[in-house]
Amino acid sequence: MIERAHAVIMAGGQGERFWPLSTSRTPKQFLRLIGDKPMLGLAVGYLEGLVDPARILVITRADLVQATRAAAPELPAENIIGEPFGRDTAAACALGTALVAARDPDGVILVMTADHIIDDIDVFQTTVSEGFGLVAGESILMTIGMAPSFASTGFGYIETAEAVPSDGETTFLKAVRFVEKPDRDTAEKYLSAGNYFWNSGMFLWSVTAFLRALQTHHPRLLQMAKRMTPLAGTADFEDRLKAEYDRLERISVDYAVMENADNIVMARGAFGWDDVGSWPALANHFAGDADNNVVIGTCEALASRSNLVVSQGRLTALIGVEDLVVVQAGNATLVCRKDLAQDVKRLVHRLRSRGSYEDLL
Amino acid sequence: MIERAHAVIMAGGQGERFWPLSTSRTPKQFLRLIGDKPMLGLAVGYLEGLVDPARILVITRADLVQATRAAAPELPAENIIGEPFGRDTAAACALGTALVAARDPDGVILVMTADHIIDDIDVFQTTVSEGFGLVAGESILMTIGMAPSFASTGFGYIETAEAVPSDGETTFLKAVRFVEKPDRDTAEKYLSAGNYFWNSGMFLWSVTAFLRALQTHHPRLLQMAKRMTPLAGTADFEDRLKAEYDRLERISVDYAVMENADNIVMARGAFGWDDVGSWPALANHFAGDADNNVVIGTCEALASRSNLVVSQGRLTALIGVEDLVVVQAGNATLVCRKDLAQDVKRLVHRLRSRGSYEDLL
Repeated sequence: MIERAHAVIMAGGQGERFWPLSTSRTPKQFLRLIGDKPMLGLAVGYLEGLVDPARILVITRADLVQATRAAAPELPAENIIGEPFGRDTAAACALGTALVAARDPDGVILVMTADHIIDDIDVFQTTVSEGFGLVAGESILMTIGMAPSFASTGFGYIETAEAVPSDGETTFLKAVRFVEKPDRDTAEKYLSAGNYFWNSGMFLWSVTAFLRALQTHHPRLLQMAKRMTPLAGTADFEDRLKAEYDRLERISVDYAVMENADNIVMARGAFGWDDVGSWPALANHFAGDADNNVVIGTCEALASRSNLVVSQGRLTALIGVEDLVVVQAGNATLVCRKDLAQDVKRLVHRLRSRGSYEDLL
Repeated sequence: MIERAHAVIMAGGQGERFWPLSTSRTPKQFLRLIGDKPMLGLAVGYLEGLVDPARILVITRADLVQATRAAAPELPAENIIGEPFGRDTAAACALGTALVAARDPDGVILVMTADHIIDDIDVFQTTVSEGFGLVAGESILMTIGMAPSFASTGFGYIETAEAVPSDGETTFLKAVRFVEKPDRDTAEKYLSAGNYFWNSGMFLWSVTAFLRALQTHHPRLLQMAKRMTPLAGTADFEDRLKAEYDRLERISVDYAVMENADNIVMARGAFGWDDVGSWPALANHFAGDADNNVVIGTCEALASRSNLVVSQGRLTALIGVEDLVVVQAGNATLVCRKDLAQDVKRLVHRLRSRGSYEDLL
């Protein structure tokens, strides 16, 4: 374990992109998409031996606190913190940092998400460990970037400049700019330029560095953090958090802080990372059969190729179809062209606007 | 009601083509595909006012007798007869005729199926009524043929010659040949020739004419019929039928009798008929929505066209798909290209060969 090392796992989510398997009540971090553990359990596992479970906080939706405790039984119950409403990642980062500050004002923090996949845990731990060494006692903010493997328009990018000297195995680069999700042409340019990296949404900082950054770039969040710190673990915490959150805008930590800060270092993550942002992305983590179909559950396929089928405890039969995502869960079945999988979110919004459909599930 | 008129409804079926809604235990005649009644109930309804319910027999699988009685409560329980094994239509016609012979040796019989759709019941009843008039006391066998609306390769055809004089509204033609399901080119020729008709599988004959035809063309079936007639309604019936059927070959009435007989008259059926032989055929009986999707049940569709969705009490969501059949039933979902719907049967055979899948449903 690294001294003074803490982790804040952000586990919100509305359960949209993996509908109908994910729902509002069972968002992605609870799904056992890969192996036997829920995604959140995998995230906790990535930290094993690196961060003491007593120093791992999970920030989730208030209505998911009980389910989150069940999904991460390794963690102390009081480390699972519910947000009364989603206020995006800036608020979650500020709250998480405030809670660590209450315990360890000189601590360093890894912020990560509950629903991403990391392939090489050893390399991940080395990266984080060396990153902690660099941010400890310093005022820098660190982000973990991934060398793009294709011209993705689904990620934000980090533009980097010269290397930051370090003794370890990890490459650290000065980050000069955070950029939002680009269009296709721009993404191609970033890919060929070689100094642009995907923004993974994982960050490292010391308590003091992040609070100082909030003071400069988003003082309102600093006020919230300062007011909440002394309430950590008290009976007033929940009501007060609700009052604080009620007055906050929704804003991401990238937009509120990282895009404006000039003291950012990027750790190059070389551990194999995937945010598994859609059904087809999930398929990439499984070997297909002879017809390139990926089946989780039971499927009988005739003359069908390159489909993803999720059909646990049920039977899906395919005849003559290609490049589809077919998912049975609850009382619903999704049949979606793979290249339109981003529209699942739009579909769920439409179902929710109708009111009653989620009750069917 | 027409005097001496009887009907034999053939209600076998393995529940293959409408899987997963149909199964071995609930073949097509039990499905409420169109309106509120099961297909068998529709068939009984077509005979209302034409044939006394006391004179309507249903020949079904022995294991379906109870379910058949429930689906056709208008009929006397003893009129539902179970076959110990399926032996195709020749055996069913012989058995049905034998049972009518036991009650009314001078009767006339309409043989029909339990799972076809008739649009204009008045015209149907006129056709059958005039047909009964023609076959009564005569040695002719009558079949009902349909003017082909396209070059179907899924039906057998009847080649016709000169008209048979009659006083009514129905056209009767001398049938010169029964031909099996043709290939595409042959079907095109039949369509343009104008004197070829689809074989609907509906027949009319007098008891004596059909028994005489069996004597000439398939004496073994005549023996079975003669031995079973005196056992109708007795305690020995079931065991004896099993012994008789055990020795019979599987053969259709077309092949065993109609293709060889030279005394066949075809009634031209002009009442709108469909055997609803597949999922896409069912879709033709419903108006589609603005995107030509036919939905039976609940469906949310984005950018999807010309699909058939059967999803009763469940939700099916489509994104970006066209010309598919999507059916949820039991614990299974079928996703099938419309033009490959005939392969559903092959799929069900494969599932049955695996043994355990139908238990999932």
